[in-house]
Amino acid sequence: MEILADQTPLPDAIDERLRSQLTFVIEVDRLKTVLRQSPLAAAPRRENDAEHSWHLAMMVVLLAEHSDEPIDVGHTIRLVLVHDLVEIYAGDTPLYSASTDQQEREEAAADRLFGLLPPDQAVAMRALWDEFEARVTPEARFAKAMDRLQPLLLNWMARGGTWKSPGVTADVVRARKAVIGEASSALWEAGQVLIDEGERRGWSRSGS
Amino acid sequence: MEILADQTPLPDAIDERLRSQLTFVIEVDRLKTVLRQSPLAAAPRRENDAEHSWHLAMMVVLLAEHSDEPIDVGHTIRLVLVHDLVEIYAGDTPLYSASTDQQEREEAAADRLFGLLPPDQAVAMRALWDEFEARVTPEARFAKAMDRLQPLLLNWMARGGTWKSPGVTADVVRARKAVIGEASSALWEAGQVLIDEGERRGWSRSGS
Repeated sequence: MEILADQTPLPDAIDERLRSQLTFVIEVDRLKTVLRQSPLAAAPRRENDAEHSWHLAMMVVLLAEHSDEPIDVGHTIRLVLVHDLVEIYAGDTPLYSASTDQQEREEAAADRLFGLLPPDQAVAMRALWDEFEARVTPEARFAKAMDRLQPLLLNWMARGGTWKSPGVTADVVRARKAVIGEASSALWEAGQVLIDEGERRGWSRSGS
Repeated sequence: MEILADQTPLPDAIDERLRSQLTFVIEVDRLKTVLRQSPLAAAPRRENDAEHSWHLAMMVVLLAEHSDEPIDVGHTIRLVLVHDLVEIYAGDTPLYSASTDQQEREEAAADRLFGLLPPDQAVAMRALWDEFEARVTPEARFAKAMDRLQPLLLNWMARGGTWKSPGVTADVVRARKAVIGEASSALWEAGQVLIDEGERRGWSRSGS
């Protein structure tokens, strides 16, 4: 797959470092075409990764006060902005799926995508993605919690959504969403209210 | 227009402050349905405001070094995340249009939308939007520069895009994009290369 900027190359009159940066900015336009499983609340279609990433960033701004540990909000926003970028080449891996080569595909995608940037920025972007994936810092834990809470809200609004996927039960949802509690007891409490009430209303299957 | 969360109300078991925040988080899902004029680089369709806002946030992270004045990157990201929210109720106003009641519509939209939040956060979000609009701080100037540079890149990739709108010439484009130069001489220089080259190739009309 050629990179987008190769279709209409940026003029050489633009400084090389800036040209690399703009080439990357153009390439990540592809994130808008990576579809997720979640249905929007506002329209009858699936969400894409770029919209999703924006939504998480907005949630970080609004919900940071619920983090159990102090977090650097600006840094947490950076984590959610970049967390799905590798899906541009690796594709979305649905939460309720069993994928075996996801990590391998995403590592290759990261090398290729971040390699478009000047070396110092390639390292910085890769570090953000690695931090998100490792979930060791309070910021990464909170970012991951947003990534799990947001589709939970969309499933609530859809009165089921991906909770109705084959093989998914309310207990499976609880298990996959429990990482929210590693970042915020208040948000996980609210998440459990939604999951429990969804099960009670028959929007997810009971049993494990 | 009822708010989205009224379609599937959040249970009262969720704490009131958090319920207000989640109600807002659900409502802003609508930003994904507000279409802009710009065509995507990665697919044959128009861009929506949520994707656009994510793209600007990514650009702030990558291009901040080109600001002529020091900026707080985390704060600048917040400005671009919220800058189009009022369009949820007020709609998008294309750059190359003459709108007379835009400000009035957007003020009313801000009151309504931010009013869903707890009062302290309503004030904070409104302050971010006002700061972006006033373009007085270095962060707001840089945020606005991103807002003008991003569609310029998309028009370049589309070999014209909205540059081909009725009444638009290369000089009109230059005049509307000159605010980029208030934040970054390097980015405005690159922007002018793209506008000049686009005019030379016939992707915009010459003359004023």
